[in-house]
Amino acid sequence: MNATATPPTMVHVPEAELADTVRRALTRMGLSDPHVRAIAQVIVAGQRDACQSHGVYRLISCFDAVRAGKVQLAVEPVVTTSGGPIVQVDAKFGFSPLAFERGLPALVDAARHHGLGALVIRHCFHFSALWPEIEAITAQGLAALALTPSHAWVAPAGGTRPLLGTNPIAFGWPRPGPYPYVFDFATSAIARGDLELHRRAGQPLPQGCGVDADGQPSTDPVAVARGAMRAFGGHKGSALATMVELMAGALIGDWTSRESLAFDDGAGVAPCHGELILAFDPLVLGGGDAAVQTARAEALLEGIAGQARLPSQRRFAARERSHAEGIAVPATMYEDILQLAG
Amino acid sequence: MNATATPPTMVHVPEAELADTVRRALTRMGLSDPHVRAIAQVIVAGQRDACQSHGVYRLISCFDAVRAGKVQLAVEPVVTTSGGPIVQVDAKFGFSPLAFERGLPALVDAARHHGLGALVIRHCFHFSALWPEIEAITAQGLAALALTPSHAWVAPAGGTRPLLGTNPIAFGWPRPGPYPYVFDFATSAIARGDLELHRRAGQPLPQGCGVDADGQPSTDPVAVARGAMRAFGGHKGSALATMVELMAGALIGDWTSRESLAFDDGAGVAPCHGELILAFDPLVLGGGDAAVQTARAEALLEGIAGQARLPSQRRFAARERSHAEGIAVPATMYEDILQLAG
Repeated sequence: MNATATPPTMVHVPEAELADTVRRALTRMGLSDPHVRAIAQVIVAGQRDACQSHGVYRLISCFDAVRAGKVQLAVEPVVTTSGGPIVQVDAKFGFSPLAFERGLPALVDAARHHGLGALVIRHCFHFSALWPEIEAITAQGLAALALTPSHAWVAPAGGTRPLLGTNPIAFGWPRPGPYPYVFDFATSAIARGDLELHRRAGQPLPQGCGVDADGQPSTDPVAVARGAMRAFGGHKGSALATMVELMAGALIGDWTSRESLAFDDGAGVAPCHGELILAFDPLVLGGGDAAVQTARAEALLEGIAGQARLPSQRRFAARERSHAEGIAVPATMYEDILQLAG
Repeated sequence: MNATATPPTMVHVPEAELADTVRRALTRMGLSDPHVRAIAQVIVAGQRDACQSHGVYRLISCFDAVRAGKVQLAVEPVVTTSGGPIVQVDAKFGFSPLAFERGLPALVDAARHHGLGALVIRHCFHFSALWPEIEAITAQGLAALALTPSHAWVAPAGGTRPLLGTNPIAFGWPRPGPYPYVFDFATSAIARGDLELHRRAGQPLPQGCGVDADGQPSTDPVAVARGAMRAFGGHKGSALATMVELMAGALIGDWTSRESLAFDDGAGVAPCHGELILAFDPLVLGGGDAAVQTARAEALLEGIAGQARLPSQRRFAARERSHAEGIAVPATMYEDILQLAG
């Protein structure tokens, strides 16, 4: 989604070339090779899928976070397993993608062995979408649910002061064929990245996305950033955002969005907190005929596709285009990242 | 919530007396003692908490389901455990409350031992709210998440034909003091029970709850019942409803809402499907200082309560009143259930 009224001029870059440029930019920031590889993968995947708010634009988030001096650039995440369903990763205040990558094999093993597994990541700086993680799990034939706090930017329903994060919930289900069923959405009425893109483009927000610092409804992205964003879907979305704080914060012994923002202390960089990712093996939990399970899920999903659009279809269509034509990047953005890559 | 414009005359019945009446009514339907006890508990709890759509009104649902001859009245649920985190209960086409009751101790054990546990209930007739189950788990100091399909009454966002269930999501977090943090909501814009109460009271639905059989927006509960309900929160609520079908249907090898409705075959009785309940032990998953976890959660929840209402507060207030004054029951409804009790 792009916030500009007139589409920007795009350049089309082969995936390998874009990945190389992104890696060089990250390396110049001082990140270790494992972090560079893991981060580049999610950033390039975001741009490939035309997620402008989670594509190469996020290199700027990385750059800002690194410059603020809070992120550990070369730290190796520590994975702890016990043979049970819980896999714990201490990201040690590095960026999250490497922590996820390091924990994934044990999570998959746990889910296959026990029927479900939980990957608990603590102390990570988080700027990425959750769907790359979800898709890495569905690629193993598992269902996945991921929750993470962010910064305290969202007012609870009925209130006007920021307290909750934009707290995304992402879910995936493996399907036959190349693409799983996947959704990944902020529990705020608009994603923070989209708010930022509106701000950069000087475009008003849709109605209902937030309030200004006086608690009055506003469509001005600058005023809403100073006031509070709203949860989607009224009290239900607000309750889900609260659940994310409790499950991916208090439950796992890591920070809530308010604590993340307090730690940020005005630096304005990526949130720092934990993440909870659950994986489920249909072959174990179904207790029966896998073909029946698949047919049942496919009947449901085809029933939806027969009258509406499934989530992520725009992303998957963009992915096909990227494979055919190269990855589309806004021309001015590409110049910026070439600068970063040196 | 009550749909009538003028509040009905209420009688106040001591809890023990109401429970006795409800049990007698259920016994007269032919249900076995264990089912009678388990069902009466959730129905009385619903009325006690002033959930008119999940209180004694549900005796009529039970009666209709029993009369339709599909529900097993005296079947004993079969619990299967393996020492791992998964607890499975085959409800054998009985009502769900006894199946939950029978599976609960093993679920609690699994969560305490492994950090998380999953209770998979299959083949149950389901008419109850999920919060009694959630509160039974939070009472053990555990967090809980419960999902269940229903009947295919809800159109996916962007469509107009019923396919998804009202698919509730319920979550709970244990708190110091008598009441946990709990929410329990339909992923439809209005709960089915509330739609029924509007229909019985001849009251229009709020805007945006559904469409008629021609796919046109309607506030007529009869027309929406013949057409399709809408998900809450647009495509996000619709995606969550889809997740519930996949997680508490396809994943666990039980029916989706569409299959439940097909099995119903026009009988118009309670849905028959499975349920997935996850329980999480903060003491295991927090990996540290429980007092810090509690303080963190309380800071969040008090921060919400300082500017808005937490979910379930109306229920808890009604519970206090019921304890003090007896349980309020609409007078005409109470006459109906005295009739059923004989």
